[in-house]
Amino acid sequence: MSIFPESIPPLSAAAHDAAQRHLDRLTKPPGSLGQLEEWVARYCAITGAFPPPPIRACALVFCADHGVTAEGVSAFPAEVTVQMVRNFLAGGAAVSALAREAGAEVWVVDAGVRGDFEVHPKLIDRKIARGTRNLAREPAMSREEAERALRAGYDVAREKAGEGANVLILGEMGIGNTTTAAVLSAALLGKSTGEFVGPGTGVRGTALERKREVAVRALARRPEAPADPLEILCEWGGFEIAAMAGAIIGAAASRAAVFVDGFVSTAGALLARALAPDSMAYCFPSHQSAEPGHALQLAALGWRPPVRIEMRLGEGTGALLALGLLRGGLRMMDEMATFESAGVSGEAEPGGEEDSG
Amino acid sequence: MSIFPESIPPLSAAAHDAAQRHLDRLTKPPGSLGQLEEWVARYCAITGAFPPPPIRACALVFCADHGVTAEGVSAFPAEVTVQMVRNFLAGGAAVSALAREAGAEVWVVDAGVRGDFEVHPKLIDRKIARGTRNLAREPAMSREEAERALRAGYDVAREKAGEGANVLILGEMGIGNTTTAAVLSAALLGKSTGEFVGPGTGVRGTALERKREVAVRALARRPEAPADPLEILCEWGGFEIAAMAGAIIGAAASRAAVFVDGFVSTAGALLARALAPDSMAYCFPSHQSAEPGHALQLAALGWRPPVRIEMRLGEGTGALLALGLLRGGLRMMDEMATFESAGVSGEAEPGGEEDSG
Repeated sequence: MSIFPESIPPLSAAAHDAAQRHLDRLTKPPGSLGQLEEWVARYCAITGAFPPPPIRACALVFCADHGVTAEGVSAFPAEVTVQMVRNFLAGGAAVSALAREAGAEVWVVDAGVRGDFEVHPKLIDRKIARGTRNLAREPAMSREEAERALRAGYDVAREKAGEGANVLILGEMGIGNTTTAAVLSAALLGKSTGEFVGPGTGVRGTALERKREVAVRALARRPEAPADPLEILCEWGGFEIAAMAGAIIGAAASRAAVFVDGFVSTAGALLARALAPDSMAYCFPSHQSAEPGHALQLAALGWRPPVRIEMRLGEGTGALLALGLLRGGLRMMDEMATFESAGVSGEAEPGGEEDSG
Repeated sequence: MSIFPESIPPLSAAAHDAAQRHLDRLTKPPGSLGQLEEWVARYCAITGAFPPPPIRACALVFCADHGVTAEGVSAFPAEVTVQMVRNFLAGGAAVSALAREAGAEVWVVDAGVRGDFEVHPKLIDRKIARGTRNLAREPAMSREEAERALRAGYDVAREKAGEGANVLILGEMGIGNTTTAAVLSAALLGKSTGEFVGPGTGVRGTALERKREVAVRALARRPEAPADPLEILCEWGGFEIAAMAGAIIGAAASRAAVFVDGFVSTAGALLARALAPDSMAYCFPSHQSAEPGHALQLAALGWRPPVRIEMRLGEGTGALLALGLLRGGLRMMDEMATFESAGVSGEAEPGGEEDSG
């Protein structure tokens, strides 16, 4: 499609097979690293090399505002988006601390924040507009805005991959964006909106009812939901969600792995899949959010994220925690002895008992 | 009880509350780190300090042989236990690689391996006997051996805590030990043995049937299962499992946190709970093994481990992966800005909508 100039290459089957053959020689029962073996082999297949290059991780926090906050759906005032961008740039947010722990650099992408910022070395200005329009009442963005937002994320991912990053961590921030993610996910998956609206950080009672009512009303503006994902994006999208979808596609076009975070990021993954299904091979699910709608998104994608610690913070925090698992898997692949080199006997008979080691 | 000379202190409520108050001031929606907030606050409560001391992690791999291997239940020959001990000491095992990644030192505890080793700086010799007796036919160990094995683990944990470790990672290795763990878990929980026997690393068909038959026969030696956990340990225990139980109790007595690994390690936790219930407050569940019996053990303990990546390797590998989550949580507690310091507005109204940030 014309928004994205580069095609998505297939994964390297040769690198994948070389990795799996090596994993089978290591001093552990075959397959006993479980899903981590698939991760490690796929990382090799994505980078196209065995042994694979070391991880160079880059966290991209896509930020934007949402016109739907005019409906009073949010516990936090809309100016918190601007304030949190400053917090990201100052290194004081959750993603900042976790990125230091995980060995990832953080860039903040302004995809449509309703506010202005000084030039900052970690701020990437791709502002499409000062927030979306109110999707409960009208289309959130024009087609031209939608295409620019997708392309913005795509270009940023391509740039970071071009500078050497081979793992992109997708995060986001935007007051109102769980409402947007709920409506967008429902529209993309052809499901009812209500299922995707959740308590989030602790919406209860009448506030939760109002949030649900707004989401249902938003989708009901178009009783016949459009089939075109771009049109769905225009109706009910957010600039940061569009940019994350573009970033997934840009990463895939650049042979970089992508760690997808929680509920809002996964809405971006659903959009990326609708636009470029081949990009999914480059994605790693990370954690399962406490937000109930995330489980529905994950089921639709066939994803089983390995971290289940009931976080619901966004920003890329769950993705950064899961990055440590891939690091551990690669370290094992790189440093473990083989049965042969360690002089350890293999299975006495096929299909025998498990033991630890 | 007389095996364990020191009592288990209560956690520090003051440190716990100070940690939780601080977490609530950080620039994130209240409670949005989910279970990780409980982990971080409990780590403070265990160490008795807020701000807490940095993690000093020590992985203890308890190794022993099992007489039940004479029944032909294992796919691997019994000498693999000895070979893997050498592999641990050489730094070539999965736990070796992951410990380097996780910043933990590894000690290998010989609790009852059927083999001899040269003196090695990382080998702790606490050999009770050269393997247990065959629990399918007779009690696995004497009462004196059981007490020595428990005390061995207790002493090692106290020593390592005395040298400064405040997080102990429990791992194990022993050909035959999933059979032992299955029988012991069934006896401790008053359940049928068959539920705890699983495919492990890939036991299928007749081999799995044989493993199950051996386990059922072992428990049937005593149709009235004893109520005393020490007597259960004598009948159906393993030296490394007993030592892990002792290590949990020793860590708790020393105010050190314990990360419990998979199916075999969790059998040790069940034994520790039966002997010293207060020790459970010091335990952190880490991953859920692919071994189906692990889910039953976890349910009995009320544990929900945060890593679900279908590993079934033992050695402490799952525990080391989960340690990274606690590191991330502590980093956030230490480095995040507060709403006040960052100039970020709080909730406009209680019970409002979730947003990321």
